[in-house]
Amino acid sequence: MIKDLAAREDGPVRVSGWVEKVRDQRYVQFVVLRDESGAVQLVNGGVLREADPENPRSDILLARTTTIAELSHGSFITVTGELQHNERVKLGGVEIQIDTIDVVTQALPETPIAKDSSIDHRLDWRFLDLRRPEQNLVFRIQTTFLHALRQVWIDRDFIEVQTPKLMASASESRAELFEVDYFEGKAYLAQSPQFFKQMAQAAGFGGIFEVGPAFRADPSFTSRHATEFTSVDAELSWIDSHEDVMELHEELIVAGLTAVKEKHGEQIQKLFGIEIEVPERPFPRIPLAEAKEIVKAEGYEVPRADDDMDPEGERRIAAHVKKKYGHDFVFLTDYASSIRPFYHMRHEGDESLTKSYDLIYNGTEISTGAQREHRIDVLEAQAREKGMDPAELGFYLDFFRYGVPPHGGFGMGLARVLMLMLQQSSIREVTYLFRGPTRLLP
Amino acid sequence: MIKDLAAREDGPVRVSGWVEKVRDQRYVQFVVLRDESGAVQLVNGGVLREADPENPRSDILLARTTTIAELSHGSFITVTGELQHNERVKLGGVEIQIDTIDVVTQALPETPIAKDSSIDHRLDWRFLDLRRPEQNLVFRIQTTFLHALRQVWIDRDFIEVQTPKLMASASESRAELFEVDYFEGKAYLAQSPQFFKQMAQAAGFGGIFEVGPAFRADPSFTSRHATEFTSVDAELSWIDSHEDVMELHEELIVAGLTAVKEKHGEQIQKLFGIEIEVPERPFPRIPLAEAKEIVKAEGYEVPRADDDMDPEGERRIAAHVKKKYGHDFVFLTDYASSIRPFYHMRHEGDESLTKSYDLIYNGTEISTGAQREHRIDVLEAQAREKGMDPAELGFYLDFFRYGVPPHGGFGMGLARVLMLMLQQSSIREVTYLFRGPTRLLP
Repeated sequence: MIKDLAAREDGPVRVSGWVEKVRDQRYVQFVVLRDESGAVQLVNGGVLREADPENPRSDILLARTTTIAELSHGSFITVTGELQHNERVKLGGVEIQIDTIDVVTQALPETPIAKDSSIDHRLDWRFLDLRRPEQNLVFRIQTTFLHALRQVWIDRDFIEVQTPKLMASASESRAELFEVDYFEGKAYLAQSPQFFKQMAQAAGFGGIFEVGPAFRADPSFTSRHATEFTSVDAELSWIDSHEDVMELHEELIVAGLTAVKEKHGEQIQKLFGIEIEVPERPFPRIPLAEAKEIVKAEGYEVPRADDDMDPEGERRIAAHVKKKYGHDFVFLTDYASSIRPFYHMRHEGDESLTKSYDLIYNGTEISTGAQREHRIDVLEAQAREKGMDPAELGFYLDFFRYGVPPHGGFGMGLARVLMLMLQQSSIREVTYLFRGPTRLLP
Repeated sequence: MIKDLAAREDGPVRVSGWVEKVRDQRYVQFVVLRDESGAVQLVNGGVLREADPENPRSDILLARTTTIAELSHGSFITVTGELQHNERVKLGGVEIQIDTIDVVTQALPETPIAKDSSIDHRLDWRFLDLRRPEQNLVFRIQTTFLHALRQVWIDRDFIEVQTPKLMASASESRAELFEVDYFEGKAYLAQSPQFFKQMAQAAGFGGIFEVGPAFRADPSFTSRHATEFTSVDAELSWIDSHEDVMELHEELIVAGLTAVKEKHGEQIQKLFGIEIEVPERPFPRIPLAEAKEIVKAEGYEVPRADDDMDPEGERRIAAHVKKKYGHDFVFLTDYASSIRPFYHMRHEGDESLTKSYDLIYNGTEISTGAQREHRIDVLEAQAREKGMDPAELGFYLDFFRYGVPPHGGFGMGLARVLMLMLQQSSIREVTYLFRGPTRLLP
């Protein structure tokens, strides 16, 4: 690995990677070679442009010079040579004097994208786009973030579940549902693991988690929506209210950002110019109605007929929180029953409000959580009120006929977290392969 | 948590869980209460069947007695009372003298399944089936196994990827492909992350891993097949041959089984009567042709027209390995090119064999791995030879036009590993919610 070279003593080494840059000068050739761990400068001091009958190594030197001159960007090569520490070399303070060079695979000379190509064009050539160190870092950060979350769950004795993505009916609303030809019948792609996470509560699993795909046939083209996305989900039993869910949620976010800052903080600073901030606990909590009053008092009236917030309102309340509390996160709580799914539990004494929240990070919603209604009679009534067909909900409602403890959970969009953490303009930049209404390739 | 009671001192406690058993005797009532961590006995010594005007607590005692008498199996309750250590109590050596009892949710009195119900009937009521301690343990084991695998990858600096499950074309053969209505067109569900794992190699990601769903429109009803299953995948660059893939694979299996044995070995012994064996490295490796000779010499001729093994042959070679080397695992290597996908690399000097393997565990295949062909001209020729349409492979072949290092990897069926580890008769027993040609519910 290239990152390990600096710690090695001078001497013979063998490295592999792809060609990032070639500088072919008259008397010396330089190659910048990159692997997944970093980059290093290779030097060919024995440049020979024409056969030299006086030199016994003429053929070898000539061939090596030609090979390097013809190297195309992105070609994969393996090189043997002498490692030399040299303080004047900016790239890691080492360079390698090339002895042999083996072109494993030559890349096509014309690279179809450049750093300033449009995002859509870059996505056409995503595998080349992902070679950029910033992009490589995005997925290292994501790996570290997820591993830290899973460690919290493991430490709390949660069970990991893999819920099915093929379903007999809708898991959320019937809008935005993908239909699959399933033998003689039809199946639907899971829009969320909601029902199956709750099934685990009926099964007495207690705390559970899942990181997996979710599918929405959403025709919109915003920077925050995809037809397939990675959903980070948790659900836990024996809670007193949505407050217990928020506490778990906070703990996970803090653990994830702490791990990211520790492992990648310096690189993030270097490549993105961003200082990762680990938030203080507890995160601020503001009831939605109050949040709307605050942004109204600051001059913005949310232009919606229903009781919901809008993206601009979320940005403004986040700015308010940042100014007042210096915090990047805020839980907006107690959403109106009218704009929440039937399975959100409502407040005792005020049916119009739910025990639910959205988590806002740097001005954008990343997550929705709630205590769920576990009493079958109340749940059925709420489903009917929302105009749901109880027949379609049959298997789900059955869970509650055999006893389910009080429980709650959340679902969080992984790409949104990454986008907001790294201040990217779109989830497309932080999704391995983005899927949208007009994008299924590569 | 109930499991923590034994370590506590006598005194007031509060526990929640579901009712596993009620023994309603004339002068004393017993309830076995279970949560996700274990079970405990509750005792009501103050049984009162009729109002007693002499007793000032008559109403309370009467109500409590009636509540307990009417408790149905599976109901979720919260109890306060006095914890008492008592060596004569078999269940953990403690019991709780009930003070108050709160029925959080009453279950329907008739439980639709029993322990000896058919697997199909039990799957109809999977959430009740999963309440059995054996089933709960299965998913705790799976959680521990996966976490141990991920720790190996993290320690080796692998990147976790979430590859898309919606694709524009087939990822393996066109048979067994699910079609999705995708806005004005069609999409297909990923049969494996194969192409996208290899894309990560083209992107210079080096080692990568993924645990996610894969989909096969397989109409068969065997004990080892499902239409949706969890695939455990890894891929890594800069390998010399499939031997490097097998080494990673071994390391993961050993880490997974070690963690499972440490954390759950005792429980597995108790509930399944199985001693988890951590295999020695290296696992035996036998070229497929040789394996076929061995089983033939032992009296079994594989009844196949092609060069492949069959399930009976796999059982027999595994039995041979177990007898000869005392090993539960065996790598069958060097499968014929004729029965392997076009992207498997072939041997130098013998085009008829691939640098591939299957991993057999207790007699059944759990995984396929290989070095991949990374040279575009060879890869194209192999695809044409297999009758593939290069136009459909366009995006995949593009990866190789810009340089890909030598690489390989494997895909492993998670449920198969669990089934074989716990000697279960079907993957249905170890899948959270099984999906088959006639099963989409719950």
